[in-house]
Amino acid sequence: MAVLNWGMIGGGEGSQIGPAHRLGARVDGLFDFVAGALDHRPEAGRDYGRRLGLAADRSYGDWREMLEGERARADRVDLVTVATPNATHFEITRAFLKEGFHVLCEKPMTMTVEEGEEIVALARETGRICAVNYGYTGYSLVRHMRAMVARGDLGRVRMVVAEFAHGHHADAADADNPRVRWRYDPAQAGISAQFADCGIHALHMASFVIGQQVERLAADTVSCLPSRVLEDDAQVNLRFDGGAAGRLWTSSIAIGRQHGLTLQVFGEKGGLRWAQEQPNQLYWMPLGERLQVIERGEAGLSPEADRSSRVTIGHAEGMPLAFANIYKDLAEVIAARKAGRTPDPAADLFPRAEDGLRSMAAVHAVAASGKAQGVWLDARPPMFR
Amino acid sequence: MAVLNWGMIGGGEGSQIGPAHRLGARVDGLFDFVAGALDHRPEAGRDYGRRLGLAADRSYGDWREMLEGERARADRVDLVTVATPNATHFEITRAFLKEGFHVLCEKPMTMTVEEGEEIVALARETGRICAVNYGYTGYSLVRHMRAMVARGDLGRVRMVVAEFAHGHHADAADADNPRVRWRYDPAQAGISAQFADCGIHALHMASFVIGQQVERLAADTVSCLPSRVLEDDAQVNLRFDGGAAGRLWTSSIAIGRQHGLTLQVFGEKGGLRWAQEQPNQLYWMPLGERLQVIERGEAGLSPEADRSSRVTIGHAEGMPLAFANIYKDLAEVIAARKAGRTPDPAADLFPRAEDGLRSMAAVHAVAASGKAQGVWLDARPPMFR
Amino acid sequence: MAVLNWGMIGGGEGSQIGPAHRLGARVDGLFDFVAGALDHRPEAGRDYGRRLGLAADRSYGDWREMLEGERARADRVDLVTVATPNATHFEITRAFLKEGFHVLCEKPMTMTVEEGEEIVALARETGRICAVNYGYTGYSLVRHMRAMVARGDLGRVRMVVAEFAHGHHADAADADNPRVRWRYDPAQAGISAQFADCGIHALHMASFVIGQQVERLAADTVSCLPSRVLEDDAQVNLRFDGGAAGRLWTSSIAIGRQHGLTLQVFGEKGGLRWAQEQPNQLYWMPLGERLQVIERGEAGLSPEADRSSRVTIGHAEGMPLAFANIYKDLAEVIAARKAGRTPDPAADLFPRAEDGLRSMAAVHAVAASGKAQGVWLDARPPMFR
Amino acid sequence: MAVLNWGMIGGGEGSQIGPAHRLGARVDGLFDFVAGALDHRPEAGRDYGRRLGLAADRSYGDWREMLEGERARADRVDLVTVATPNATHFEITRAFLKEGFHVLCEKPMTMTVEEGEEIVALARETGRICAVNYGYTGYSLVRHMRAMVARGDLGRVRMVVAEFAHGHHADAADADNPRVRWRYDPAQAGISAQFADCGIHALHMASFVIGQQVERLAADTVSCLPSRVLEDDAQVNLRFDGGAAGRLWTSSIAIGRQHGLTLQVFGEKGGLRWAQEQPNQLYWMPLGERLQVIERGEAGLSPEADRSSRVTIGHAEGMPLAFANIYKDLAEVIAARKAGRTPDPAADLFPRAEDGLRSMAAVHAVAASGKAQGVWLDARPPMFR
Repeated sequence: MAVLNWGMIGGGEGSQIGPAHRLGARVDGLFDFVAGALDHRPEAGRDYGRRLGLAADRSYGDWREMLEGERARADRVDLVTVATPNATHFEITRAFLKEGFHVLCEKPMTMTVEEGEEIVALARETGRICAVNYGYTGYSLVRHMRAMVARGDLGRVRMVVAEFAHGHHADAADADNPRVRWRYDPAQAGISAQFADCGIHALHMASFVIGQQVERLAADTVSCLPSRVLEDDAQVNLRFDGGAAGRLWTSSIAIGRQHGLTLQVFGEKGGLRWAQEQPNQLYWMPLGERLQVIERGEAGLSPEADRSSRVTIGHAEGMPLAFANIYKDLAEVIAARKAGRTPDPAADLFPRAEDGLRSMAAVHAVAASGKAQGVWLDARPPMFR
Repeated sequence: MAVLNWGMIGGGEGSQIGPAHRLGARVDGLFDFVAGALDHRPEAGRDYGRRLGLAADRSYGDWREMLEGERARADRVDLVTVATPNATHFEITRAFLKEGFHVLCEKPMTMTVEEGEEIVALARETGRICAVNYGYTGYSLVRHMRAMVARGDLGRVRMVVAEFAHGHHADAADADNPRVRWRYDPAQAGISAQFADCGIHALHMASFVIGQQVERLAADTVSCLPSRVLEDDAQVNLRFDGGAAGRLWTSSIAIGRQHGLTLQVFGEKGGLRWAQEQPNQLYWMPLGERLQVIERGEAGLSPEADRSSRVTIGHAEGMPLAFANIYKDLAEVIAARKAGRTPDPAADLFPRAEDGLRSMAAVHAVAASGKAQGVWLDARPPMFR
Repeated sequence: MAVLNWGMIGGGEGSQIGPAHRLGARVDGLFDFVAGALDHRPEAGRDYGRRLGLAADRSYGDWREMLEGERARADRVDLVTVATPNATHFEITRAFLKEGFHVLCEKPMTMTVEEGEEIVALARETGRICAVNYGYTGYSLVRHMRAMVARGDLGRVRMVVAEFAHGHHADAADADNPRVRWRYDPAQAGISAQFADCGIHALHMASFVIGQQVERLAADTVSCLPSRVLEDDAQVNLRFDGGAAGRLWTSSIAIGRQHGLTLQVFGEKGGLRWAQEQPNQLYWMPLGERLQVIERGEAGLSPEADRSSRVTIGHAEGMPLAFANIYKDLAEVIAARKAGRTPDPAADLFPRAEDGLRSMAAVHAVAASGKAQGVWLDARPPMFR
Repeated sequence: MAVLNWGMIGGGEGSQIGPAHRLGARVDGLFDFVAGALDHRPEAGRDYGRRLGLAADRSYGDWREMLEGERARADRVDLVTVATPNATHFEITRAFLKEGFHVLCEKPMTMTVEEGEEIVALARETGRICAVNYGYTGYSLVRHMRAMVARGDLGRVRMVVAEFAHGHHADAADADNPRVRWRYDPAQAGISAQFADCGIHALHMASFVIGQQVERLAADTVSCLPSRVLEDDAQVNLRFDGGAAGRLWTSSIAIGRQHGLTLQVFGEKGGLRWAQEQPNQLYWMPLGERLQVIERGEAGLSPEADRSSRVTIGHAEGMPLAFANIYKDLAEVIAARKAGRTPDPAADLFPRAEDGLRSMAAVHAVAASGKAQGVWLDARPPMFR
């Protein structure tokens, strides 16, 4: 497979997200990092890009300069990753889609539902890919859960129980820590803190696995630290369009939990349990039988699981390679388009603009329900109602 | 300590609860089983009692006969356990309390809140003990959690997360299984199935550990099996009178979970996690430190934990001995009363009529909230408002 | 079933083993505690026995007095438990067997192989039961492992891997702690410390489960604390009479391990893993399939497992009830003898004098091999060669 | 840091080891893959190399051609990875070292101890790096264990217990499976099967962590499948040059274990436990305190741990990135040499020719001791005695 050209906006020196994306794009050798506008300070960005090996004329000072520079080139980037501050995702993503680039946008894709709908419409209109980076669905066994549900191993899904609970914002002394404080301040973070930050990963994973989208929800949002305006703990009850019900708990004050993204799916014919912190084992009980342990890399898993797995059974794979699977998917789909062939269906699993939009609608519904004593609200974006 | 006289109503041949109580009462040698009315069929009960070693004149044909027989005796039973069908608990408990007996009543203590209030009032008036059998709070490490909260190890409790989720009623083929079916039939089970059966254990444990009572709740109740009228899955959001918030999930369709009673408590200064299926370890993370494992039986635990523990560290203790701790508590408190001394405060932990009443009020609130789209309702019994 | 009469020698006030035996004998209501010689100080023993409810004439001052008193009675004890200091086990056990009593002897049954052979011969000659208290084989799932091997689920057993490693003697400061020190002093403890104390539990369990006896062994014994003469850590390689090989590691300096009795059995057709600290789950992988979790109390287990289990699935059972299963077995076998019927074969699992003897021979072989650079030695008692 | 030039010998199309090395070398962007001789069939190798992006003139037909081609170039490869069949490692590694290349050799470095000594001598003489790929020591928490021991957290190390037990060769039907069969055939595999394949990883890790080298050992080797000449299960007792003792068990018939590389280290002041299958948690009990969980990525770990960790706490990292840490180390040390600066000491942790030699000597000692009834043998290479 020919190596694709890849560029990045944001992810400058010292950021966490920049190295993660570069690792994800690089690890399978499917993308060459050839262009970037890495910093909001033009000179710092150009310099850092050159130090990372970009050619001088493709290490840009800002995203507009990059858009100008790349759209004219025959060897222009096949994919642009947008990893800038949240408030700028919409504008940049829109601009690159309009010029015909495929985009991988960090979450949240937009700040409002309306913007999300515009991106979805634009992606459909231009026929460009707009992927959104819910990287946790890249895990091999998460994809296997999806395949198991899709092929009917569980029968009808009755209930999905998702959690994303950690304790990293539990210290009251962090009230003045700027790295934590902004997250709970509506002026900087918008209408939701913990649900928007973590809860939507759990919700997206639930939808991804059961193949259903949330229709209605009711939320109980709590600020456990009195100094906070936005919620640091939320319980959300869910109803999906395929008939499943759901419970989702997310918290940032759950001292003792490091990460706490877990998913349980209960169907007519069996139950599944998976946890992000031990991602190489999946617990499966077929109705009336014993609990059994499905291992990443074991023989006979689904094509979706196999394609997302790199080493043999018993050797843990972790988050960086799950993340890399989003890039691996994109490489396959983009390369297939360029070659005029059908992509491997097991690759066509990356989250899309529609997912980014749905998350935004869910965030709004959670915030509104939380303020209104847990009333049930429509969680769908207007364009999908 | 002198051995106390103990009697039992219900728990006849073939029942599960009978042997459990007899084991619990016998294991520490604190009670002699001397009287019983074990079966609703008088002859069967008398015969079974004699075979279990009761004297012929104290193996009664029914509870009224037993009440008559015992109240006249100088060596009358010090404690009566009521383990009859649910609908009879109130009448029997009331009758024995009135005659001055101490009672341990199986849960639910009554079928209505009003009856529960009557029992509470009667226990207070007569000065008799009316214990209710929430046996899971007998575990040594559950009692240690309570002690840790009470002495301030966690600081203010912010959030308690309780679960009691199993998968034993997940088989649609059980729709016609009489052992399962009645539980979801309002004519036989009342207003709630899974919450009333399992959820109240989790709620009682949460209250017991954090030392706060639920004030308000909002419930989402679901019947995952379409054939069921009553709920087989419920999510309940909680507010406690000491300021804590809570989440409680209970389910009987969670295939892959055997028992699934777990408790997490998050405070200002640390977090706790405990699970009934591995009851000898308690996970504790003090804020800013590492997760650590507290072992049942380790040196330096609270008096409450030590008193409820029988073997050395590393040797699992299980449910039967947790249950026995309720009897051990009762023996100490009853013996202390008889001797005119103060009981060991570490023994004074058994659940009481007030707890049975609160559970009943919570069941009603959950059922009502579940029907009313999850509206928040007062969960307190009227007499405690 | 008629209640049997039970007596105890040793287990006086303040001992750990006394309450454990009394709980084990009492928990199922199969034995009445009617006689005892509980302390080496006659008056203290008599007084304590009376306080525990013994009749004055059956609370004896020493074991000889008890032997005299009981042998004359029509209602003499059906079973005598010997829980005195190790060096006295042989003499007391021998005396009671000779007078026709059934005996349950604490481990080690004797101090020498010769004494062990004498007890075995005496038990055979008198037709009395001489049980030895390896209580860990009382666990329901340990018995299920044995049943699985016996019925061929694993095919031929190839390898058994046993551990009993804890860290409770790891503190060099305990060199002067009298509760620890004597264990490593040949003058008080004999020829072996950690293997004799813990290793033989693991070895007995291995033999019990695979239904084979050790023939030869080679040991590496180490004193990790330089102040110790006897070993605090030993690795023993094993060959069994049915063709299996084995590895056994035992240690008392393994800081971080609380108890650490585990067993793995690998056969042609599958592998098993069990750990005493989580005794209610058994991990089983049939060749070519997935690891699955066998739960104590699940439907369809072996009769041996079912008979040794008291509460429903998902409710942990622990060490005290495993221990009680030895008493439950003995009650059934003794009652069957008295009634002239065949005992339940699922009850006939308690360890016997032969097991006590084999352990003693293994202790001697380990000590001798350890001194001789790990040479392979015959581990069988002479009478079984 | 300037990107280094990297080349590979072996790892052709369809191999497992080729992609693993390319991923490891690529993931941090520290090496450019610029040259290779990937297949023993010259044309297949050249073709595959070109498809992987090598320039035509650097996609060589065999290793000799590559040696010729590269030694003449100014931009010659900075590091050559040798991932050819085992019997060729020595010759190729020697040839490249002689020409002044740094080499990363797959294990086993050589087939004999003599060859191993020659490589060690050559590496010392030329001043070139000869690394050997024991990739499991690349895990962040394995390196943290080493740092904890080195800085004295455990005090003197008393005992190290290592395991590498899996069940992937347990099926007797595999006697004719060529992918398994050769491993137990002395004609193809040499003098040892399971110890040489897996055991040496566990032994190297033990040495790496405790900072001591094995001096003497005694082995019990068993062929559980009767059709096998070489061992599929071995227990090795160890004595290290710093005074520690050790136990090492390795097996390929342990059905139910997927990988089973674990390490426990017990010192005067605490104990450690780590398992390759859950590599992001390290269990640590300081003497007299509670067991605690050290998480990869937590604040305050050693520089060695931090340098080998890429994502934040709670996000699992797995084997591919552990493996990549060997490349990351090499990049730092090679780059430092080129720049004439001191390398980061936390990078200087990759296994070296000396380690490859020691493993070979241990393999010979295990095989010889196993044949000689477990006699203790010197496990050191002659040049280190």
